[in-house]
Amino acid sequence: MDISSNGLAEIVGAANVLIGDDIGDRYRSDFLKKHVAAPAVVLRPASTQEVSEILKLAHREGTPVTAIGGQTGMCGAAMASPGGIALSLERMNRIEEIDPASMTMTVQAGCVLQVAHEAAEAEGVFLPLDLGARGSAMIGGVIGTNAGGNRVLRWGMMRDMVLGLEVVLADGRIVSSLGKMIKDNAGYNWKHLLIGSEGTLGVVTRAVLRLRPLPTTHQTAIVATESFEDTIRLLRKLDASLSGRLSSFELLWGDCYERVVDAQLDQLKRPVPLAKGHGFYTVVEAMGSDKEGDDAQFERALAAELEGGLIVDAAVANSESQRATLWGVRDEMHVGFMNLMPFCNYDVSMAQSVMPTFVARVREDLAQRFPNAVSYFYGHAGDGNLHAIVNPLEPGKPLDSIAVDRIVFGVVRELGGSIAAEHGIGTLRREFLDWTRSEDELWMMRAIKQALDPRGILNPGKVL
Amino acid sequence: MDISSNGLAEIVGAANVLIGDDIGDRYRSDFLKKHVAAPAVVLRPASTQEVSEILKLAHREGTPVTAIGGQTGMCGAAMASPGGIALSLERMNRIEEIDPASMTMTVQAGCVLQVAHEAAEAEGVFLPLDLGARGSAMIGGVIGTNAGGNRVLRWGMMRDMVLGLEVVLADGRIVSSLGKMIKDNAGYNWKHLLIGSEGTLGVVTRAVLRLRPLPTTHQTAIVATESFEDTIRLLRKLDASLSGRLSSFELLWGDCYERVVDAQLDQLKRPVPLAKGHGFYTVVEAMGSDKEGDDAQFERALAAELEGGLIVDAAVANSESQRATLWGVRDEMHVGFMNLMPFCNYDVSMAQSVMPTFVARVREDLAQRFPNAVSYFYGHAGDGNLHAIVNPLEPGKPLDSIAVDRIVFGVVRELGGSIAAEHGIGTLRREFLDWTRSEDELWMMRAIKQALDPRGILNPGKVL
Repeated sequence: MDISSNGLAEIVGAANVLIGDDIGDRYRSDFLKKHVAAPAVVLRPASTQEVSEILKLAHREGTPVTAIGGQTGMCGAAMASPGGIALSLERMNRIEEIDPASMTMTVQAGCVLQVAHEAAEAEGVFLPLDLGARGSAMIGGVIGTNAGGNRVLRWGMMRDMVLGLEVVLADGRIVSSLGKMIKDNAGYNWKHLLIGSEGTLGVVTRAVLRLRPLPTTHQTAIVATESFEDTIRLLRKLDASLSGRLSSFELLWGDCYERVVDAQLDQLKRPVPLAKGHGFYTVVEAMGSDKEGDDAQFERALAAELEGGLIVDAAVANSESQRATLWGVRDEMHVGFMNLMPFCNYDVSMAQSVMPTFVARVREDLAQRFPNAVSYFYGHAGDGNLHAIVNPLEPGKPLDSIAVDRIVFGVVRELGGSIAAEHGIGTLRREFLDWTRSEDELWMMRAIKQALDPRGILNPGKVL
Repeated sequence: MDISSNGLAEIVGAANVLIGDDIGDRYRSDFLKKHVAAPAVVLRPASTQEVSEILKLAHREGTPVTAIGGQTGMCGAAMASPGGIALSLERMNRIEEIDPASMTMTVQAGCVLQVAHEAAEAEGVFLPLDLGARGSAMIGGVIGTNAGGNRVLRWGMMRDMVLGLEVVLADGRIVSSLGKMIKDNAGYNWKHLLIGSEGTLGVVTRAVLRLRPLPTTHQTAIVATESFEDTIRLLRKLDASLSGRLSSFELLWGDCYERVVDAQLDQLKRPVPLAKGHGFYTVVEAMGSDKEGDDAQFERALAAELEGGLIVDAAVANSESQRATLWGVRDEMHVGFMNLMPFCNYDVSMAQSVMPTFVARVREDLAQRFPNAVSYFYGHAGDGNLHAIVNPLEPGKPLDSIAVDRIVFGVVRELGGSIAAEHGIGTLRREFLDWTRSEDELWMMRAIKQALDPRGILNPGKVL
């Protein structure tokens, strides 16, 4: 692509056209840090109109365009194509409006998630979606990935918070539907098609997000159970007895818990919140706004399950610092796994009823192929989403991640699950997309891609 | 279409091919009762495979196919094309599985909604979506319409309950993704594109639905407020103080309430539940499973707003029969409007902040064109969804519904709303689709339709 001749500087201004060494590392990598992207140019548009003009030009020339945001993705979806355009939305970072009467926020794609959180809270309202990368992840990427996180159980994934959406299609067409409606059955819901399409169908430029009442109480505990079945029974009981307030149910298999708390004690001097030795450990959190009733309800709910025997041990946070300690078990799990690096990690989903089979089968199949393999399981059990960390432990050999992928995804496929629950496909999982999507589903996806991006310029090589 | 030669009887069996006078009224009309459909044939397949073979044949011959279910639609979307195939899913009515451990139900498209409700309850679980037509509406139609109802505020629309979906595309291709996952970011979410597409992109044959804990408590009240702003403030406060348990917030403007309760007193001898004369009346319902806490929480929440002055009058149901009486105001509103028939009615949505402007502007514009016009407003205010009933009151003249449509939809358009919140487009609203969808949105919808149904055989003349 000939940078000088095509008027890119005329569109975004010379200062917002980066080439060569001016393209910093921030534009060349993502959370994976596995590869280095080599775009011909980084463009930093300031408006939807500028995005549209860039795409018109790229469409005409057949130049690949990859929208990039906070670069916190886990699957390589925002790694620009060699010789292509990296379209950074970072300058489109404004919160255009917060409308507390309608409980909506209109925001540009480059706004950082945490900035949106804080802006909402300053108005006394709540944007529920939260994830570890909140300080860097940008709204456009969160939408493009359909991100999940720790509160999906109650408030859903990102798609459940997007009321209105503006995207620029491959040919530069601006499709804008920035309504504030929870319900809109006028024609096809193209919004949901674009959400989670990882920048391959359009570039998200703006969105209207749904807000919720800001919770003013929260109750947090870590509880131990002996069997997986008991754990899921507990999930159902708490979901009922907390009457819809249950917002997190984050599960760690017993050996995973043990490894993490041992390492946190050793390296962070953090006390072990609940005695080791049980089958399963779950961080449970409820949120609400009934100061008189919420704490008592939470204690009643846990007490009933302790008495009934589903819960065998529990620690309830009585202060904000205790809450942080309990969440630390889940949020800082990496402390427990650093000395297992490099390892394979997974983000899969399935019916909760088959999760124990999944873990058992993965371990069996791993043991056959890699006699020393270790594997750890945890995740958003309330949403049917598990994460796994696997190291085949073959000292001296390079990590055979493909072999491990085949084992894990083979079991997922047999059990009717998905190889990508919340992180997406990107380039990392692309070869396995057809393991949990049928040929006919892929035909449909390709037909849609072809209809909306016939020249294939939008984020080529990702997803499909 | 030549019925004899094309082997339809071979596909579904002779008994399931209806022609001529054997095509009963049930297959010729919908809730509107405005038109009589004249399909060449009604086919009643027993399996997805049979649906696929019918579509392959229709695709080859270019014959229109309209999937029909309980025929409770409000927009003509399930009225078969003249000379086409009416594909009735009524024989595919089985509940294939209820998996309480995973909280899912796998169901065929022809299953009646109420049957699904009852089957779930028998297993101690809950399918939240509910609507007046529950006794006839079939799951396939509920999905095709993306139906709403009285509990969207808490549990969402039908799309929010569909975990897995199986459809047959125009060319007979079976696209089946009957997973039980809440989270699946592996590729494009075609499921959401199909949901609400009113049978124009595919025929729904089966679905996996998400279930919830069965609520064991409910609290119901009707409350009066003086201004719309107070009403929305109340909505936010109850949504917070009931901590996510608020499941219905059904609003009637004061004059609408008055007309309905007067008629119900007169014709049904039903007592007026709350004194007339206030600005707004809302049926509020919360559900939960905390027998010890829920009632007290509800009373505390209402008491606080009575004391604070947001609520000016309230009646709380103390028995199941009182609950039925309160809901009767909303569920049997037709009693109040029978002597206004024929009238125009609307299903629109918009930001809650502009609703008072909407009502005022519609009334102004109506008055200019129709000096005697009457209009009544009510709806799912918690979801931003209003219904309106308008009669221009021009005695001796035929109902000029197009003129009224233009007034109502003109205001909706100006206020950034949608002309179809939950009932869909069908044929009834098709001419107005571009009033709240841009040319570029329509381009995208047509591009998708063309990609998936190039011969245009699926429910032609609907939506687009």
